This record gives sequence, structure tokens and C-alpha cells, in this order.
Amino acid sequence: AAMIDRAIAAAVAAAAPMAAMASYERQAVLAHCVTRFTERQDELAHALCIEAGKPIRDARGEVGRLIDTFRIAAEESVRMCGEVQPLDISARARGYQGMWKCVPIGPCSFISPFNFPLNLAAHKIAPAIAVGCPFVMKPASRTPLGAIIIGEVLAETNLPDGAFSILPASRDGADLFTTDDRLKLLSFTGSPDVGWDLKARAGKKKVVLELGGNAAVIIMPDADLDDAADRTVFGAFYQSGQSCIGVQRILVHDAVYDAFKAKLVERTAKLIAGDPREEATFVGPMIDVKEAARLDGWIQEAVAGGATLLCGGQREGAMLAATLLENVPRAAKLNTEEAFGPVAFFTRVSTFEEALGIVNDSKFGLQAGIFTRDLFQMLKAWDHLDVGGVVINDVPSYRVDNMPYGGVKDSGLGREGVRFAMEDMTEIRNLVIRRRPQDL
Amino acid sequence: AAMIDRAIAAAVAAAAPMAAMASYERQAVLAHCVTRFTERQDELAHALCIEAGKPIRDARGEVGRLIDTFRIAAEESVRMCGEVQPLDISARARGYQGMWKCVPIGPCSFISPFNFPLNLAAHKIAPAIAVGCPFVMKPASRTPLGAIIIGEVLAETNLPDGAFSILPASRDGADLFTTDDRLKLLSFTGSPDVGWDLKARAGKKKVVLELGGNAAVIIMPDADLDDAADRTVFGAFYQSGQSCIGVQRILVHDAVYDAFKAKLVERTAKLIAGDPREEATFVGPMIDVKEAARLDGWIQEAVAGGATLLCGGQREGAMLAATLLENVPRAAKLNTEEAFGPVAFFTRVSTFEEALGIVNDSKFGLQAGIFTRDLFQMLKAWDHLDVGGVVINDVPSYRVDNMPYGGVKDSGLGREGVRFAMEDMTEIRNLVIRRRPQDL
Amino acid sequence: AAMIDRAIAAAVAAAAPMAAMASYERQAVLAHCVTRFTERQDELAHALCIEAGKPIRDARGEVGRLIDTFRIAAEESVRMCGEVQPLDISARARGYQGMWKCVPIGPCSFISPFNFPLNLAAHKIAPAIAVGCPFVMKPASRTPLGAIIIGEVLAETNLPDGAFSILPASRDGADLFTTDDRLKLLSFTGSPDVGWDLKARAGKKKVVLELGGNAAVIIMPDADLDDAADRTVFGAFYQSGQSCIGVQRILVHDAVYDAFKAKLVERTAKLIAGDPREEATFVGPMIDVKEAARLDGWIQEAVAGGATLLCGGQREGAMLAATLLENVPRAAKLNTEEAFGPVAFFTRVSTFEEALGIVNDSKFGLQAGIFTRDLFQMLKAWDHLDVGGVVINDVPSYRVDNMPYGGVKDSGLGREGVRFAMEDMTEIRNLVIRRRPQDL
Amino acid sequence: AAMIDRAIAAAVAAAAPMAAMASYERQAVLAHCVTRFTERQDELAHALCIEAGKPIRDARGEVGRLIDTFRIAAEESVRMCGEVQPLDISARARGYQGMWKCVPIGPCSFISPFNFPLNLAAHKIAPAIAVGCPFVMKPASRTPLGAIIIGEVLAETNLPDGAFSILPASRDGADLFTTDDRLKLLSFTGSPDVGWDLKARAGKKKVVLELGGNAAVIIMPDADLDDAADRTVFGAFYQSGQSCIGVQRILVHDAVYDAFKAKLVERTAKLIAGDPREEATFVGPMIDVKEAARLDGWIQEAVAGGATLLCGGQREGAMLAATLLENVPRAAKLNTEEAFGPVAFFTRVSTFEEALGIVNDSKFGLQAGIFTRDLFQMLKAWDHLDVGGVVINDVPSYRVDNMPYGGVKDSGLGREGVRFAMEDMTEIRNLVIRRRPQDL
Repeated sequence: AAMIDRAIAAAVAAAAPMAAMASYERQAVLAHCVTRFTERQDELAHALCIEAGKPIRDARGEVGRLIDTFRIAAEESVRMCGEVQPLDISARARGYQGMWKCVPIGPCSFISPFNFPLNLAAHKIAPAIAVGCPFVMKPASRTPLGAIIIGEVLAETNLPDGAFSILPASRDGADLFTTDDRLKLLSFTGSPDVGWDLKARAGKKKVVLELGGNAAVIIMPDADLDDAADRTVFGAFYQSGQSCIGVQRILVHDAVYDAFKAKLVERTAKLIAGDPREEATFVGPMIDVKEAARLDGWIQEAVAGGATLLCGGQREGAMLAATLLENVPRAAKLNTEEAFGPVAFFTRVSTFEEALGIVNDSKFGLQAGIFTRDLFQMLKAWDHLDVGGVVINDVPSYRVDNMPYGGVKDSGLGREGVRFAMEDMTEIRNLVIRRRPQDL
Repeated sequence: AAMIDRAIAAAVAAAAPMAAMASYERQAVLAHCVTRFTERQDELAHALCIEAGKPIRDARGEVGRLIDTFRIAAEESVRMCGEVQPLDISARARGYQGMWKCVPIGPCSFISPFNFPLNLAAHKIAPAIAVGCPFVMKPASRTPLGAIIIGEVLAETNLPDGAFSILPASRDGADLFTTDDRLKLLSFTGSPDVGWDLKARAGKKKVVLELGGNAAVIIMPDADLDDAADRTVFGAFYQSGQSCIGVQRILVHDAVYDAFKAKLVERTAKLIAGDPREEATFVGPMIDVKEAARLDGWIQEAVAGGATLLCGGQREGAMLAATLLENVPRAAKLNTEEAFGPVAFFTRVSTFEEALGIVNDSKFGLQAGIFTRDLFQMLKAWDHLDVGGVVINDVPSYRVDNMPYGGVKDSGLGREGVRFAMEDMTEIRNLVIRRRPQDL
Repeated sequence: AAMIDRAIAAAVAAAAPMAAMASYERQAVLAHCVTRFTERQDELAHALCIEAGKPIRDARGEVGRLIDTFRIAAEESVRMCGEVQPLDISARARGYQGMWKCVPIGPCSFISPFNFPLNLAAHKIAPAIAVGCPFVMKPASRTPLGAIIIGEVLAETNLPDGAFSILPASRDGADLFTTDDRLKLLSFTGSPDVGWDLKARAGKKKVVLELGGNAAVIIMPDADLDDAADRTVFGAFYQSGQSCIGVQRILVHDAVYDAFKAKLVERTAKLIAGDPREEATFVGPMIDVKEAARLDGWIQEAVAGGATLLCGGQREGAMLAATLLENVPRAAKLNTEEAFGPVAFFTRVSTFEEALGIVNDSKFGLQAGIFTRDLFQMLKAWDHLDVGGVVINDVPSYRVDNMPYGGVKDSGLGREGVRFAMEDMTEIRNLVIRRRPQDL
Repeated sequence: AAMIDRAIAAAVAAAAPMAAMASYERQAVLAHCVTRFTERQDELAHALCIEAGKPIRDARGEVGRLIDTFRIAAEESVRMCGEVQPLDISARARGYQGMWKCVPIGPCSFISPFNFPLNLAAHKIAPAIAVGCPFVMKPASRTPLGAIIIGEVLAETNLPDGAFSILPASRDGADLFTTDDRLKLLSFTGSPDVGWDLKARAGKKKVVLELGGNAAVIIMPDADLDDAADRTVFGAFYQSGQSCIGVQRILVHDAVYDAFKAKLVERTAKLIAGDPREEATFVGPMIDVKEAARLDGWIQEAVAGGATLLCGGQREGAMLAATLLENVPRAAKLNTEEAFGPVAFFTRVSTFEEALGIVNDSKFGLQAGIFTRDLFQMLKAWDHLDVGGVVINDVPSYRVDNMPYGGVKDSGLGREGVRFAMEDMTEIRNLVIRRRPQDL
């Protein structure tokens, strides 16, 4: 805690020098990161693979996205525009000229999760540097390496002293990340329960929460079923399902329910599980035995409640097989809570509208995927789904690092996606000039 | 011509006082117009009906849109924003601060067409007032009343002297509208030949051209055919087809060609033609006998070349019946030129891609309509059609007055739609401030 | 509390129908308000005057701004734009198309203060209607009339049942406004202590806080001193200083300190205090005796600590005379806390930089005013003052209702100003479409 | 001409494949250019120096800006955003959803000038690649090397065949660049006479003209005179004054006229003229003897008309000494036309307003510089100067490559500055979707 306190003090001291950095200087720092991550990408991928048990192909993909995220931030760092605004909208404002720009909000507090140790840390760090905010970061205690390596690369730049501190504290000693009012923003990515609790204790800071969900995909009869099955397998079991937008609920139209189920079960059964360092491995272990046991219990609860196991279900330590079910009771945790593991289940729907209703019947609202060709259904989903993002012809698990990303309801508060995160890390500072009467 | 010269001189003199008007003053002028047009809407509709032979229901519709256009402009007049821009993108620009605003371009020259005497004049006048540009306008010589009434209402406001002149000159004496370099913008709506000729003679002015087209609609098998037929009848014969986005080419997928043709012919045959002052009238006379005879000749040329007449074809003076054909030769004027009258023809297509190819096989490119439910077809059309606007589930003839509107290829240059027209009527004026070294 | 619970339930039920309202329908509601407030402006001004003791001229001014605020919102209600965004920024995103729009955040909770019973309620209500959010509002218990009249006018429109509830509850029974998680946003305008406490108890809602400050004005030697004195008197004593951006701290450059002080004291001594219903009255009573006594105590504390009273200082019940002091100790409440009454004090500064330092040496950061002609000083202030807005050649007390408005540090969280408030009342809902490989 | 014809045909063929390039592919092409120009910067600088006689330090500066321009374009290439727009602004538009994106305008024609052979070519080429437009370019016949080297680097990328052609044709055979209607945009940078003539012959294309000016700087008494003198020497004689924003007119306030004149003459007399390859050289030769003789003649005309030569005035072949005059007659070419060489002259002014009047009393309007500390003067200049850009505390000769740049009046049409040029190289393509009644 003393170390955190010192880090915060250093960040406070760095706020003015960072705000004074020119755009091209902030860009240079970010460009340096892009260069170094590109040079070190193999090393980074292996670190991810070993520390988090992330299959090596997924790990390489994450490093690619880390680079994307920093590149986007480098580009945005010279684009912090404001507005010149006419204020003379009524007689009392005649001669007033307005304009505003964005200034850094100040020292930030970041807490990042274990599942994407590099890219979800990057989605906080890169925007902070782009706008000129110092920060203290607490990476997930089980996977601190990613953030530490980012810190290593930042240390090669000429950021002001104290501009960043990466502190892999355990949760217990880390209260200052949440409560210290010298920090102006708390940006947390992680589990819903923790997130909402932090919000209540965050004092005067602005709070951004990127939490979880029980994302759904809808399969309509006009979809290309093979393509939809390929993508759904990916969406459900990629990274052992440990993604906040992993497919958990599969809503299939009656007309293709059996056909799609067969395709998906077949593909899932063929997934290669095992050593994450092997190129061929698709499903690796979950982050730890406790998590795997937790989800195993949910599967058993669902089956006890009447669910049918279609494939998978076996667990060995932290290795849980890719699992598909159907007839999961509505009240089962597998339906209502975030599974965050390699499990998904089918639900049969008769109409598109019924499917939308089921997607919305959740306390979460992150993303939803819809395989349909029908543009009216697409618009209806965009108009009516209570989620942060609707993905058409793909799984909810899709994300590009420049798009606005984040959830509604219990899934979070605010949006990330570099430019959107940068907005939260800045304040509008308005400038109003009253012209002299003789100049009108 | 002397009168035009004086009007231009007055506009030049009014440029500075208009640029000096506060936002709320420009808004008040436009709000007054909204109020007065609303009060006078019956009178305006009847004037349109009598002068232009426009069916009374269409005339009422146009008055409604006139009011929309001025209301949008009133709202936009207080929103002429600019940008605060960081310039310090490299070391040599350290300490430089940029910002820009939009200023009126100066006196404008407007030439408006006969088919929408009110609203197409409004699409030039209202943005000009919104940004603070004086103007001289030449309405169509056959339908000057609409613009004159707008001028009457403007005369009730406290715009500076010379801010506007509505001069219903014949084309011959009107060269100054085009050539006089005191005018900074020429905005013309009318026929392609005239428009492109004006551009060559426009001197140093910026030129905006809203010209014609031979708009196409595509009917795909998954469309609601009854709805599509209703809308297509409207798109083809509304205002006797005298609209630059009237449906001229009807591309129907093979699978529904016969069915759709039958529906359209049936509906077209039932259209009530006659006295435009009657509430029931759908098809009134064309603007004059010469025009009707011109189009009649094109029909006969097409038939002589092998086209089949499906309904209509009769002409009595300026009254040309609503006419549908098929098998029109590709080289016939009815296909390649702008019909601008109550005629449309069917073409059978086998694939969506073939239909897109035919739409693009035209020297024009204004709008295209597509009745489809397929979102991939929608995206393909948006990606590949060489037009200013793609309208899904409706005819190309649809327009709302705040949307960007205008054509590519021979259909014109630039966009209207209030905000977009306002952009053309302004110049960016940049402001750069070099901070002192001691302030960095 | 049961009534609040029912109102919240009604707001929840109204969320879907309000979100489904067309833009023009939301605009019509707001336009109706503009019309009716304009018709009833005398009545509204008198209600303000009698209920809140607001001088009648100030009351009329506030009604004018109420109308401005609703008019801006009416205009913005048809401009809720989103973005079409290219997502194909790296190979893995090839063929993906992004776009996002803004959707209403859901039922909102509003708490508005006593000092601008109409316009500060309007700054929450009008944006909510513009975006389509139902709301429950708790106006200040001492001045509920303004909000109630707004509610009366809203009741004349066809907003869905439950779209709005104005509940002048006392603070004790009003906990649900803060804690109920059916409400998605809490927007509070009022005192800092209350505001920050609400934030901690606000559950999962987004929180916007518009709190107070101890606003400063800087007078530099190149200013027009008479003009600056006129504006400073206004900024300090307008509405008996009961404005969150009222001038509390007057920082005057040494070279003009005595001259400016003399001018200000002279003008202040001439201010007419008394019955707020009289046209001539400038200073009316404070909101209640308790508040006046509280501030009276602060004055005495300052004087006891060494401050010099220059004019004013007398109190009779809720009437506190317009008071100016100098040599106020740095630690005095009059310096560090929000006075929120007719009191201001002078501080002598030797340099512009010293003045900026004193402005920033405050826990608050709302607006600051600077009378200077020097553009480098202007930029330096814009670059370095920790406030939401810098006002040049005017007092910090200036606000136009379309500009971004709000504070940093203890002065609040978020921005109001119609468009900016609308942003907080919406969520981004992203739409991603994956094109088919064959369409690339 | 046959070669030009073939190049145009190739560009037409390349339009579709270029439009189909993904954002990241266009970015990769531009990023490759940045890398290669950085690697080759010495070589590029020497080529500029030898071919154009540009002093080597200026040449290095231009290479730096070439790199900036391509880097900005690389960043913008993935940011071609459009808008999601509500269309339901009145009852007839209920259920309509709008959105628009920008698509490349098609094959472009570029003509670039001799004075900045790299960067002014880059300001056309880089935006074209950023948006996906093929182009044909005619560099200045005297300095084709810069564009040819850019072409060389582009040839290393995988742009589609025909995407670019750099054709250093003489003006005579180059008519197709102007007249061929397969080209959709003509962007010309060069002399006013040529530019306006091209516009008249440009057929149906959009035309962007970046022409010349007789830029003025204003020196007010509160300026830092030494700093202003340093910057003015730079602005007037940088690159032998062969810049369209080079300082030609120096307006000095009476109170500092003599002092400023003395400082400027002193500095100018010390400028090192000579071999452009020498590091120390500030003033090199003009582009050719003809140009130097032309300007020499103007100096003599002015002197004959009463002007006083303060320094310089000698000419040896293409070497014209840095020349300052005063009392230049208002009608002299040196005042009214573009000098485009190392000559500037003083004018004494009594008030700021007089100075603004003189700046505006010109047929040109590119940029103006003002050395003042007065923010009201700054605003007045921004409000009233008829120029594309006002530069405060610096010479009009300042430009950063991301800012909007271009002139009004005879100085041109349209703006460059990457993002602004990209706008001109694109068309808005609107998409309107009519929802089905049952979906409302």
C-alpha cells in the first residue's frame, strides 16, 4: 500500500508535465511501443501462453491486437480536437465566441483482468498516453506479465517520471486504486460483482466499468449454417470461453435447430484440447482449478435441473472440455450468470422477435450476434436489443480495437475503443470570449 | 440585364452586413418564414397547382416540404461550428494552436427549376440565409411564383438591403447570373445540358449542379410486391414523372417479373388523370406541350425499335397518360436520356449483380431504389452503385430535406440538403496562433 | 416514498414507448413547451419572484433562458446522429462495416436546486425529452413551483404515461431517487457535499453532478476598468450571489488594484436592495434566514481573522447587504468554501501567473473570468486553469445555454448544455456487419 | 498526349480495384512511403537542392514535411467516416433511417508547381491514396524529380496497375489533364492565371485551385519586434520568396515603423546568398533567369513610380538579392500582383483597422500574419480578413500539413491539408432504409 501511495503521488506530480507534452511527443511514445511490440511479438506471445495457459495461436492474435491498439492510439494522439461554437443564439449572447478543447483528466487508476493480459491493459494504457494522463495500473494478480512488459517498453521512452506505475498488487492491499481521491478516473475491466462494488467506493472519481455478460447468438434459417457453425464454435470456445463476449447462449430458429445443433456438436467434438504451447491446440486450460470447478458445478446444476449434455462436460483439473447443452432451465446459473468458460447451450426459438426477447431477458447487455440475411431483422435488433453492440453475420465475440465497445445494464458503464476511452480520460475545457461592443 | 447588374451590386453591398448578423438574427429571419409559410400554406398550394399544373395533393406536399426546409435551416443557422485543432504534430509546430470557423462565401447566384418551384428554390435560399450569404435568384421562367412568394415573405424581415433579389428573367438576358465574377457561387438546379454549359462559363465561382437522371428501381423476389408496386407507381408517376428522381427504369428479377408487371400495369391503369385542381387527380399535365411532345416522340421511337407498350401512351396536348413499356432497346432515348415525364419501362434481370450493372450503365447517377430484404445485397449496392443515394425498400424518388442529396457523373456536382448546401456556401477561415517560447 | 416508487415504475414502463417516439414527435413536445412558456412568461417570472425572492428582472431573464434551453433541445432532438465507421483497420477486420447510433439510456433521476428553479430543471428535462428518456424529478423543496409548471406544460403533450413525474419530496423520503437501480442516470445540481454523498450511494447508475465553486475573476491592467467593474458587480451580486458561478474571489493586478477597488465599492454601494417584486431591485433576500446567517458568520470569521470590510456586511433576516472585503485570510471559509451569497473579496496579485496559481489553489473548478486584452494570457489560462470554462473579458458567471458547462475537482462530474447533457443520457449502440467473403 | 491518354485509361481501369482496397491496405501503401522517404531523406534533399536551386536547409525542411504529409494521410486513410442520420424529422419520414459514407470520386488529375516539388505533390498524391483514387500527375516541367521519386516509391507497393502515373509533360501537350472527362477532379497548384484558365476548360470535373497571393504581415506596437523581425525575414526571403504565402507586404504601425524597418533591413542585409548546396546559404537563385528578370522589372517599375529601395535590388542572372522597399505606389505590380521572389515592402499604418483594410484591398486572399498581443484585434482579424488563414504572432508563410490551407478570391478554390483534400476527393454516398410499417 505504501508503494501504491508513492506511485499515486508520483502520478500526481507527473500530471502537469504530461499535460504539457506536445502531440508529437505523445505520438512518439506510442509509436515506440508499436515498434518494440512488433519486434518482440514472439516473446510476448510465448509469455501469454505460458503465464495464462492461452493457446499459442490465440496468444499471437492478442499480440497483433495489442499492436493495433497502440497504433490507433498513436494516430489519435495528434487528433484531440475541440469545437469552435457560435454562442450568439439569443440577443443576450451577441458578440460571444465559444470554443472548447479537451484536456487530460489527470492521474488515472486502471485495473485489468487476467484473460487478455496485454490487450485489455493496452485499452487503458494507450489512450491514457494518447491524451496525456499519468496512471497507476494493477494488472490481474495471476497474469501480471503482459502489463509489466508494456511498462518495460514505456520505460524506454522519455515519459516524465511517475507517468506510469504497473503494480501487480493482490486485491487486498489495493484499496487505494479505488478510494484515493487524487486519482480522477477508475477504469476497471473484470467481473461484475467486483466492478459494481468498486464503483460504490470510488469517491469522487469518474468510473468506467467493462464487465461481463452471457452473450447470445441468434441463428436464423436464412443463414449460411456451415459458416455460422464455424464462427459459433470460435465464439464459444476461443480462449476456453474466457472472454466477456464469448458465446454462452445459442438461440436457434426452429426450422434449423436440429441441423445447426448437429453441425455445432460435430465441430465441437473435434476441437483439439491440451497443451496451449502446441500449435494445434484450440482449447487450453481455464485460468485455474477453482474456476473450472465453479463452472463444472454449474453444468451439473443445469443437468440436475433437466438440461441435456450434448458433448463435453468432462473436467480434469483446470481443463474443462468444450461443452454444449440444451434444455437448460431458465433459472440455472448457466443461463443467468456469466459462464466465462468453454460452455454454451442451445435454446429453440420460433420467431425472431422471441429470440430478441430472450437476448434482452438477462441482467447483462454487452454484445449480441445474429446470423441473418434479413435487413429488417437487422434494424429491429439495432433498434431493440439492450446491448452495447449488435454483430450481424458473426458471433457477439467479435471486436475490432477502434470500435466503441462496452456494455449496458450489469455489463458495465462507459465505452472503450481508444477514441472512446480517450473521451473518458479528458475533460472539456471551454473558452468563451466576449467581444467588445465596439467590435460588433 | 441592367436590373440583374443592379441586383448583383446590391448583393455585393449586402455581403458585409449579412456576414455581421448574429446567429439568432439569421435564425429569426428563417423562423419568420416558417411561420408565414405555415399561415399561407393553402394559398401557396393553390398557386403551385395553377401555375405549374401540379395536382393539388402534390402541391400541398411540396408546401409541407418548403416548411421543413426552412425549419431545418433555422435550426442549422445557430450551429455553424468549426474546429479547435492541435497543430503540434511535429517538432516544428510545437506551440502552435489551430482553430477554424466557417464564414459566408459571399454573394450567390441561384437558378431554380420549374418542377418544384417552392422547395427547390428553398434548398438554395434557406441555406444562404442560414450562413449569411446575399443572393440573386432566377426562378424558372414558367413557374416564377413560388420564388416570388418566398421573396415576399423575406421582404417582411429585416434582412439588409440587397440581401436577396428574385428575378424571373428569361434565360437569354440572364448571362450575368453565370458569368459575373462578383458572385462567388453558382448553384443551379435543372437540366444536365444547361447545367454543364453554365459550369464552363462560370468564371471563378464555385459551381453546384443538381441535374437530372434516369433513376432505376430494382425489385427482388423477397420484396413485398404489393407494397413495391404501390411505391413504384408513386415514384414513376408522381407529379407526372417530372422529378429528377422519378422512376424511369424498373429492373425486376425474373422470378417475379410477370407478377410485378401485372400489379404495376393494373395500378397504373387506374390512376386518375385530369384537372390538377381536383383532389382525386394523380396525373396532371406536363409543364407544356413541347415537353409532352418530346417525350411522346421518345415513346414512339422506342416502340418503333421493338418496345412493347403495356399501358398509357396516349397524349392530348400537354397531357400524357401514365405509360409503361417493356423491351425498350438499350439505345433508345427512353433508356439513355432523362424522360422527365410519366413514362417508365420494365427490364428483366436474372441476378442482383446484373441489376446493379444495368443501374450503373448510365451516364447519370442520382439515386437508386431497391426492394429487397437481403442485407448483403443492400451493402453491395451501397458499395458499388455509382449514385448519390441508395434507397432500400423504397423508390429512388424518396427524399427528406435534411439528407445529403445530389448526383454523380452527369447528374451533377455537390450536394444539397441544407447542412450540405451550407457547407458549399461557406469558406473555412483558419486561425493559427503561435505561442511564445516562454509560454511553452 | 411509495409515490416515488410508483413514479419510477411508471418511468420504467414509459422507457420503451419513449424510445420508440419519432424524432419529430419529440421535437413537437419540446416546441409545444417553447410556445407555452413564451405565452406564460409573465406568470412564470412572477412565480419565480414570489417563491424564491428572485428580483423580478432576474426572474424575467431566467424565463428567457428557460425558453432558450427548450428551443435548443427542440432543435437537437432531430439531430441524434451516429457514425459510420470503417473497421477494416487490419487484415482480420477485412469486410467488416461498423456504424453506431445513440439510444436513450433509460429512466433518469433528476434533482434540481433552488436558485434557478426553472432553467436548471430545464437543463435536465429538455435533454431527456430530446433523447427520449422518461424521468422522475425532485425539485428543491423550497422552490418546487418552476418544475411543477414545466410538468404542467408537459402534461398538455402526448408524452407516454409515466414519461415524467415531478415530485417535490423532502430530502428524507427521497432516497429512492439516488439508490433505485431501475433508474439509469442520476443528474444532480446542488451543493458539493450532498452531491458527492449521492454519488457513493447511486448504485449502478451513471452520475452527473453540477456542484458549486468559489469562482474567481482576474482583472489585468489593460482591461477596460469601468466595463470590468460593471460586469463584476453583476457577477458578484446578481441573484444575491446565489449562483454557482457567482464571483467570489476578485484577483486584481497591483497596478490597478486601488482604482478597481474604488470603482467596485462605489458601484456596489449604489445597488438597490429590497423587495424583489420592484423593478428597480437588484439585490433581494437570500433563500432563507439560515443561509444568510451562515454566510454572515463567515464574514465575521474573516473579519475576525484580519479581513477588512469595504462595504455591506449588514444583515436583516434573509437580507444580506452586498458585501466586499479585502485581506481575507487564506484559510477563511470565505476563501475556501462556496459563499453562495452576496459577498466577494479582493486579492492583490503582482503577475498574471500568480493570479492563475491562486485560481487553481481551490478545491473547486467551475469557471473563471479574466479581464485582459492579452492573447498569450488568454491561451495560458486556457492551457492551465483547472476549471470547466474560462471566460475572457467577462465574469465567470457567464453562461449561454448551448455551451458545455460543468466543473472539475469538487465542482462536479460531467457537463450540461443540452447537447452535452444529451450525450450523458444516451448509450452508444454499435452495429457491426460482417460482409460475406464472396462480397469482398 | 497518347501517353497521357493511356495513363488516363489505366487510371479509369484502376478506379474499381482501388476503391475496393481495404483501409489497412491503403494505410500500408502510405506507411511504406513514410518509411522509404525517411530512409532516403538525404538523397531527396539533395535532389531538391540541385534541381530547383533550393538551399539545402530548406530542402531538408521540405523533405521533413513530405514525410509529415504522408504520415498524416496514412493515419487518415483508416478514418473515412460517415454519419448515421435520423431522417424522421417530419411525419412523412417516419421509419426512415439514413446513413452516409464517403466513396472515392474516381480518377484524378493533378498538376503541381515547381516551388515545393515534393510536398505540394504530396498534398495531392497522399490524400488520393488515402481515399482510394487513382491519379495522373503532371509535375512542374522544371522540377519533375520530386514527383518522380514519389512515383518510384509508390511503384514498390502493391497498388493496382494504373493507380498512378507521373507524367512530366510540357504544358502544351498536357491538355488532356484539364479537359478529359474521364477524370473526375482537377487539382492544380500554381499561378493564378493558369489556374483560372484551366477551370474554364475543365469540363465536368470538380476543380480545386491552390494559387498565389501577395501575402501581408501586420506589425503592431505591442509585438516583440526582434522576434517579429526574425520571423518576417524568414517569411519574406525563405526559399527566395518563391512561396505562395511568402511575405510581400509588410504593414507596420506608425509607432514602431522606423524601429522595425531598421531591424528588418539590418537582418536582410546580412542574409547569405549564394550556392544553394552550402549549409550557410539562405537565399539561392530564383527558378530561372526569366522569372528573376520579371521581378527585377517590377522593382524598377516601383522605384520609377516613387518607391525607395532600402536594401537589395541587385540581380545577377537568376540571383536576385533580398530586396526591401518602401513607398511603393499602390498601383505598382509589386503591390497588386504576386511577386513570388525575394522582395517585400513596407507600408506605414496608423491603426489596426487601416491595416486590415489594406490587407483586404487585394485581389488575393491566401493567408495573413499579425504580430499583436491584443485578443480583440485577433478576433477582428479572424472575423473580417478575406483570407483562408490568419496567423497570429507569426508570418502568413506558416503552414502545418494537417491544417486547412487554401485561398479565397483569386487565390483559389477549395482547401488542402490532407483531411480537407480527402473530402474533395470523395463523394457522399447516402443510404436510406425505409422500415416496414409493421416494424415501427
